[in-house]
Amino acid sequence: LVLLVSALLFGFLSVLFALVWVFHYREGLGWDGGSAEFNWHPVLITTGFIFIQGIAIIVYRLPWTWKCSKLLIKFIHAGLNTIAMILAIVSLVAVFDFHNAKNIPNMYSLHSWIGLTAVIFYSLQLVLGFAVFLLPFAPASLRASLMPIHIYSGLLIFATVIATALMGFTEKLIFALKNPAYSTSPPEAILVNTLGFLVLIFGALILWMATR
Amino acid sequence: LVLLVSALLFGFLSVLFALVWVFHYREGLGWDGGSAEFNWHPVLITTGFIFIQGIAIIVYRLPWTWKCSKLLIKFIHAGLNTIAMILAIVSLVAVFDFHNAKNIPNMYSLHSWIGLTAVIFYSLQLVLGFAVFLLPFAPASLRASLMPIHIYSGLLIFATVIATALMGFTEKLIFALKNPAYSTSPPEAILVNTLGFLVLIFGALILWMATR
Ligand code: HEM
Ligand code: HEM
Ligand code: HEM
Ligand code: HEM
Ligand SMILES: O=C1O[C@H]([C@@H](O)CO)C(O)=C1O
Repeated sequence: LVLLVSALLFGFLSVLFALVWVFHYREGLGWDGGSAEFNWHPVLITTGFIFIQGIAIIVYRLPWTWKCSKLLIKFIHAGLNTIAMILAIVSLVAVFDFHNAKNIPNMYSLHSWIGLTAVIFYSLQLVLGFAVFLLPFAPASLRASLMPIHIYSGLLIFATVIATALMGFTEKLIFALKNPAYSTSPPEAILVNTLGFLVLIFGALILWMATR
Repeated sequence: LVLLVSALLFGFLSVLFALVWVFHYREGLGWDGGSAEFNWHPVLITTGFIFIQGIAIIVYRLPWTWKCSKLLIKFIHAGLNTIAMILAIVSLVAVFDFHNAKNIPNMYSLHSWIGLTAVIFYSLQLVLGFAVFLLPFAPASLRASLMPIHIYSGLLIFATVIATALMGFTEKLIFALKNPAYSTSPPEAILVNTLGFLVLIFGALILWMATR
């Protein structure tokens, strides 16, 4: 329970820091082909792809779900993962649209290569999860043999998403902070470095809970 | 065995790509307060902190070690981790020395915050590992209760090291590629993006083997 409360705390703080970042230091949110549109990218990733995915992963471990039927928890797990997936896709639309509007090339960075790979594997994981563990067609033996792979790939994708976000924060800080530069540690740099740490600790707590 | 061979392959390829990067595209290796000194940082991290640490983690899983005594494997595990630790520290000395020579501030980036934290936890892990699992003082009950924490924190630190390296590649590509810029995808960018992917796959293989 202490773990759950700390995870929720770090998760909420991450979302809060992301919002403070884009509203107080950046251009807020909008859908205008400019920086305010880009800002949906980190906000939706932090809220959806990191926070909601993290909760989806530990939903089987929450004490109050032990009273619910297994099917209900499966619906919650699948539902939260579907929401996370949708928010991740909207966040990609925002950044591609922003790049196209500004004539910045697409898919040049290590961040974008690993990020897009993570989203593709996440979709596969979602479709396979539905097909094998929710629809009533798969025999129990198939379910049992795929479960270790489902858990390993789920946790690996989650960790990769956190790593991608840390690369993203780094890129954005280098691009956006020119005067004063990132290397002079202005308040915005401290805020976003701290945000990166919060996301990492959130991830570590989720991984601890999911492997107990 | 297929897994082991693939992990070794991805590990060797990573080291090779890092060397091609610094020798073919960058200034090679040196200890002169310039870029050639910085280059020790990615080379030693890839070779030592990633490749050797990865091998150290799976050493208990190798078929040919099953014939050896438990104590001998413990020595190999502890020894490889000690070598990785030393190479990581030398790689930090190189980058701090480079920063000081060039009057670049220290410890401003998310990369450096998370990287230094990882190295500190790694040292703690090493000292605790020696004290509890190698020296003959700890009772079996203490060993048994600390083992899950040792494994979790070992794997978490390893994953964090990979994430830190991906941030490092990103930073260096943005700083070093100006004309032509990183965003125009020159060959060096493709090479190092690929290196980032190799390191990620190496990490995924090690984590799979260590959790089977
Ligand atoms: C883990 C979740 C994330 C994924 C899957 C992801 C994915 C992507 C993708 C596919 C692109 C390429 C867009 C294009 O080329 O048009 C991109 C660009 C970008 N992202 Fe993310 N991103 C994630 C998190 C973040 C975060 C948290 C930030 C923080 C601000 C961020 C900052 C950036 C920046 C600055 C770019 C433009 C530069 C570039 O193309 O690398 N990303 N992202
Ligand atoms: C991209 C989407 C998904 C991800 C990232 C994901 C990830 C995970 C992870 C990490 C676990 C291990 C959790 C733990 O042991 O605490 C898990 C368990 C599980 N998942 Fe998913 N999952 C996804 C989609 C689905 C879907 C759509 C279903 C269908 C209902 C599903 C069914 C299950 C089941 C039955 C378990 C085992 C629960 C148990 O008995 O411990 N998953 N999932
Ligand atoms: C996981 C292993 C790594 C750790 C623990 C680590 C740690 C650090 C630390 C502590 C600094 C700060 C030095 C200072 O402020 O004087 C730093 C700087 C730097 N590192 Fe790494 N690093 C790692 C991997 C890499 C890799 C693979 C690269 C790829 C080239 C890289 C590129 C850089 C760059 C460009 C800097 C200077 C900019 C900055 O301070 O962020 N690092 N690293
Ligand atoms: C920073 C250094 C270290 C790291 C990152 C680390 C990491 C790990 C990891 C990830 C495992 C799980 C491996 C697996 O299950 O395949 C493990 C197992 C183990 N480690 Fe370490 N370790 C470190 C230092 C040490 C030291 C110094 C000792 C003392 C000998 C030690 C003793 C053990 C033992 C006894 C096991 C259990 C092996 C088994 O029976 O499965 N470790 N370590
Ligand atoms: O020293 C050791 O500790 C662990 C185990 O006793 C803890 O569960 C192990 O395998 C050793 O060889």
